[in-house]
Amino acid sequence: MFVQHEGCVAFPKGFTATGISCSIKTSGEKDLGLIHSSKPCIAEAVFTQNKFKAAPVVVSQERIKNEINALIVNSGNANACTGKQGFTDAVRMTEIVEQHFDFPKESVLVASTGIISNNLPMSNVEFGVNKICKNLFKPHQNSDKYFAEAIMTTDKKKKTIALEMNIGGEVVRMGAAAKGAGMINPSMATMLAFVTTDAKISREALSKAMSLAVDETFNSITIDGDMSTNDSLYILANGMAGNNEIQVDTEDFSVFTKALIEVCTYMAQAIVKDGEGASKFITIDIEGAQTKEDATNIAFKISNSLLFKTACYGQDPNFGRALASAGSVLDANINPDKVDFYIGEHLVYKNGEVTIDECIDQVNSYMKKKSIYFKLDLNLGEHKKRVYTCDISFEYIRVNSAYKT
Amino acid sequence: MFVQHEGCVAFPKGFTATGISCSIKTSGEKDLGLIHSSKPCIAEAVFTQNKFKAAPVVVSQERIKNEINALIVNSGNANACTGKQGFTDAVRMTEIVEQHFDFPKESVLVASTGIISNNLPMSNVEFGVNKICKNLFKPHQNSDKYFAEAIMTTDKKKKTIALEMNIGGEVVRMGAAAKGAGMINPSMATMLAFVTTDAKISREALSKAMSLAVDETFNSITIDGDMSTNDSLYILANGMAGNNEIQVDTEDFSVFTKALIEVCTYMAQAIVKDGEGASKFITIDIEGAQTKEDATNIAFKISNSLLFKTACYGQDPNFGRALASAGSVLDANINPDKVDFYIGEHLVYKNGEVTIDECIDQVNSYMKKKSIYFKLDLNLGEHKKRVYTCDISFEYIRVNSAYKT
Repeated sequence: MFVQHEGCVAFPKGFTATGISCSIKTSGEKDLGLIHSSKPCIAEAVFTQNKFKAAPVVVSQERIKNEINALIVNSGNANACTGKQGFTDAVRMTEIVEQHFDFPKESVLVASTGIISNNLPMSNVEFGVNKICKNLFKPHQNSDKYFAEAIMTTDKKKKTIALEMNIGGEVVRMGAAAKGAGMINPSMATMLAFVTTDAKISREALSKAMSLAVDETFNSITIDGDMSTNDSLYILANGMAGNNEIQVDTEDFSVFTKALIEVCTYMAQAIVKDGEGASKFITIDIEGAQTKEDATNIAFKISNSLLFKTACYGQDPNFGRALASAGSVLDANINPDKVDFYIGEHLVYKNGEVTIDECIDQVNSYMKKKSIYFKLDLNLGEHKKRVYTCDISFEYIRVNSAYKT
Repeated sequence: MFVQHEGCVAFPKGFTATGISCSIKTSGEKDLGLIHSSKPCIAEAVFTQNKFKAAPVVVSQERIKNEINALIVNSGNANACTGKQGFTDAVRMTEIVEQHFDFPKESVLVASTGIISNNLPMSNVEFGVNKICKNLFKPHQNSDKYFAEAIMTTDKKKKTIALEMNIGGEVVRMGAAAKGAGMINPSMATMLAFVTTDAKISREALSKAMSLAVDETFNSITIDGDMSTNDSLYILANGMAGNNEIQVDTEDFSVFTKALIEVCTYMAQAIVKDGEGASKFITIDIEGAQTKEDATNIAFKISNSLLFKTACYGQDPNFGRALASAGSVLDANINPDKVDFYIGEHLVYKNGEVTIDECIDQVNSYMKKKSIYFKLDLNLGEHKKRVYTCDISFEYIRVNSAYKT
């Protein structure tokens, strides 16, 4: 439905972005990114609900309804659990950008990801923010590819997407970059995602499109059940495409929302596929639940079960662990005698009786696939929920016992 | 306060126990255990709350208020998620014992642990149950040490304890055996524990002592946050010690309850120390919470955080992961600016400010200890909760991706 392009956050008109290294990471890899818009944007965001919100999250949350002109982000240090100094530092990062480009006060957003509970090395950061501002419009110095690299922590792959849509005859563009890896959970845990668009759109429409897109994408993925102090999804819209302003519940709104869902789906799945040490991409459908809440709680309980995830890693069709996990959602309505369970399309448990013996060879080879599917049908109602997750491997333990996040 | 002895469930008067192999486990290790009392017992139990309760759990739950004469238990197969056949098989195990010893119908309890969702190999099991009944009173064939071995699955060590107390001038004995390893969580997940006593005690007193003991012991441990289909804690009291019957809220009751807490504490901690692949024993105190529920939810959230557990495995004093995990308990009352965090006795975070730099060398060497302690003080109220857990290592992944449970 949409034409895809190379690039990411600088693909829409008027946006420029880049990334540099300023030695926050000891590895020397890129760790500072900047998105700049030549016209002021409206912005929306979804932030982590964690009670220990990182300083940059609190700062950006206060500014999100302002006119926004740029966003500065660092990796390597999350500036979380860093007390009053953390807030001073987060604000300082934005001030340098505001002063350099002569933007109004409090019109720059800030994000951070990396180690928790260490203060930012501010001499490096101040040097870096000044440098990235100076470099931004120099030839060969700016590329949103560098931006996508600068936000990575334990990610193995860059996560970028760019597409164009047609809104009332005008070409409207959207681009995005994300970072993920461990600690991904609903409520946006340890994930940063940045979407830019040149659409002209009302704040109400942007806000509604965002919440529609998030529910079935970023809020339907989980890696390890932990929720981070820093996770944020941003969208910046600068209106430079020249379309008539998109209003809620119009045909244009529907096209824009579909594009946003496509972008978010791509990024959410890319994050799961690149989960720390993940060897399998797992889709879990809960169907036939009496309430949406039951379906959601059961889907996430199974997705976060260590025993289930290690069974997937071991390519073991051990659906009993999924059932045991579902059964531990104590306030959900489950009748064990009515339950069906599918591995791929194979019915391995029917009305509370084991039926895997009839298809054990097919199921064993199915479990060797890289992308695997499970369905639990409670047969009690009409509600359902789909969650994407990954397995847990030796590599997860290695990364998270060795890497300070 | 209590004199400890060798032995376990056959230490109290009138109890005999043993264990044999009947090839449920392919390894040839012991997999069938029997506890027999020469006089009828009153029994109490705490069962898993999982909705997919294993057949033996359902059968024993129906019988727990009956006069109880014996308990038969197998390892290697949990008889869980096994449909109608599972119930027939669980009942059949008890019938053989009842018939052999001429016990009343439905006076034998049954428990199982091991692989989920496979039916029991009943020809082996029937042969085994007949054999264990015949062997029970033969010389050199019975030992509660064999019983303790027969209930093990991925456990590395037997978990047994025996002690005596003085109740109104009479010696009263108590013995216990437990199995644990993975899948331990509050609400009794994948743990079997059997306590025997020759105390004469009223049902009301036995029931109250049990619930007092469980709350601070078995319901305060967690290994991987999963809750099993089979977990059960049993206590059998045959009254043969000759003491005056213990009544609720007397001095005798207080002595008996203390003994039971000592027995349960020992077993609960032994289970955590032997958690699959655990390298560290971790104690977490939450203090200063506004409600008991807040304290409990935060304690378990941190205890089950994969990121926190892998940090402990990596000997990294990464308290930010514990704070982030606490902060994700969305309905708990937390004020980040009031929080103190201790690693051992070192204050590493005070009123929302990092103070670890002042003691970083001591903290780094403290993290190398085998048994480590953390305290989060919310400074909001008077409620607290202590939880015991363990770290997560490569070995956990190996055991649970290779071993079908």
